[in-house]
Amino acid sequence: MKRKVDYSICLVTDRGLMSAPTIELAVQSAINGGCTLVQLREKNASLREFFEIAQRVKTVTDDHGVPLIINDRLDIALAVGADGVHVGQSDIPARIVRNLVGADMILGVSASNLAEAIAAVEAGADYIGAGALFATGTKTDTNLVSMEELRKIRYGISIPIVVIGGINTQNARLLKATGVDGLAVVSAVIGAPDIESAARELKTAFEG
Amino acid sequence: MKRKVDYSICLVTDRGLMSAPTIELAVQSAINGGCTLVQLREKNASLREFFEIAQRVKTVTDDHGVPLIINDRLDIALAVGADGVHVGQSDIPARIVRNLVGADMILGVSASNLAEAIAAVEAGADYIGAGALFATGTKTDTNLVSMEELRKIRYGISIPIVVIGGINTQNARLLKATGVDGLAVVSAVIGAPDIESAARELKTAFEG
Repeated sequence: MKRKVDYSICLVTDRGLMSAPTIELAVQSAINGGCTLVQLREKNASLREFFEIAQRVKTVTDDHGVPLIINDRLDIALAVGADGVHVGQSDIPARIVRNLVGADMILGVSASNLAEAIAAVEAGADYIGAGALFATGTKTDTNLVSMEELRKIRYGISIPIVVIGGINTQNARLLKATGVDGLAVVSAVIGAPDIESAARELKTAFEG
Repeated sequence: MKRKVDYSICLVTDRGLMSAPTIELAVQSAINGGCTLVQLREKNASLREFFEIAQRVKTVTDDHGVPLIINDRLDIALAVGADGVHVGQSDIPARIVRNLVGADMILGVSASNLAEAIAAVEAGADYIGAGALFATGTKTDTNLVSMEELRKIRYGISIPIVVIGGINTQNARLLKATGVDGLAVVSAVIGAPDIESAARELKTAFEG
């Protein structure tokens, strides 16, 4: 049976920005600070490296009962037995992924407008990654989602929504007010000098 | 049950080198010329593009009863229901792939020496892609396999061996004499002005 997922603070990894010496330590610190979900994103690793990193990170997330989601790579998600996979609009279609992974694996789908969000729900997504909300240095090939569009998405679908793109403690409360279920963060946590504190402050800002 | 595979002439695709207007047409011509196996290799496509190309190519290979193998991407292989997947030494470990795909899917593993070939057999490979045999423009991050090493691999393992890397009608007969089961070709077929004739000539040279 599918587990109940706390989507509130999702750490998205980026080795390039990382302030910790290893990705396992970064993930460990973020979880200590209250991160509830980890999405492993590797754009430049070979498949073998990605696989090995995913195995090591899974040891950390499993130890803490935090779900591990693999970005883009269904094969890696299956190979390491991850809790879920997150796909974008230019990846394998969500409906095909859902058919391959079965009902129990968490499936996240990126959406930048209501039509994509509705299509994702129909394809079997468990949650929507809506973004990018604000301009960000970690993902430049993306369109911004206006607050107006985010509200439309929130009214239009009933599955959890995690927002991504330029999220920080300053805008966390504003986003909470739109009724989203969680924040996905890259640089604001994994790039912070103190990852644990950064995660804790973001959680406080979102829940506060 | 696993089908019997004719490994003799394996077309490896490369859209960059292709002389045909579409990859489906290139594959169709190669099959008309006697190609017995198609390995779809896409290094620069988005996942969605790769998925769509793979679906279209599969229509052609299915029509002719020619197995379709996906290079590297287990997720694409699963998503389109390909006949097999081919992994290299820097991809997800072959043993993990075998566990994920089950016994029936064809699993090819690249090996550039006897130790890698034996490990691949132990991991459950159905065939070995041995190479690169000769210097080639289509894959530059690779070590050459000497004829001596190829003979060692042939004596050391009993599963089919397909050689790759700079294969053409000139060296095809020499390679046949080493006891390999097939030739995998990229530019010599897909880059030829007449793909069908190129495949036919290679087949004749190999089977001679």
